[in-house]
Amino acid sequence: MILELADILIQPGREAEFDAAILRGVTEIIAHAEGFLGWSVHKGVENPQRYVLQIRWRSLDDHMEGFRKSADFTRWRDVVGPFFARAPQVEHFELAGSSQS
Amino acid sequence: MILELADILIQPGREAEFDAAILRGVTEIIAHAEGFLGWSVHKGVENPQRYVLQIRWRSLDDHMEGFRKSADFTRWRDVVGPFFARAPQVEHFELAGSSQS
Repeated sequence: MILELADILIQPGREAEFDAAILRGVTEIIAHAEGFLGWSVHKGVENPQRYVLQIRWRSLDDHMEGFRKSADFTRWRDVVGPFFARAPQVEHFELAGSSQS
Repeated sequence: MILELADILIQPGREAEFDAAILRGVTEIIAHAEGFLGWSVHKGVENPQRYVLQIRWRSLDDHMEGFRKSADFTRWRDVVGPFFARAPQVEHFELAGSSQS
């Protein structure tokens, strides 16, 4: 399992619109991708324009080669991209430990 | 529920030592704090010196007023602090949605 962590900054004042857009984009587009395992979206307390999207993928390739190079990635960016204040910062992680593992 | 997300960068070459230290610090110190609900630690794929520690707290005050101002916070920093390449970036988040909620 690989965790994609996307650090997102949106334009001020568009939080309510973005809340709906990101949930729609994840559930209607990303959730249908090959190798998709699960997701969460968190909103910033100190910075209400900051969102952290976490997607669990079966493998790095499922995200980078499968989803990122598919037409669905373009559809996803069409849904959420208009709200971005800058390009999201995306990196991948392996689980080192957790209270739920 | 509030999520604390700590973005940590450690000194190169000390990954194996830090893997053990952070798991020990979380399970032996943070996990006993008032209002602690759960944790995960992830290690960077693109950047092996990057770690993301996620702690779920009952409330923001449980972390910032309770744990941060306790002697246990000093003990925690004594365990993990020697590995840091810079001060960790810590912010708090509210759940907007997830496939497990």
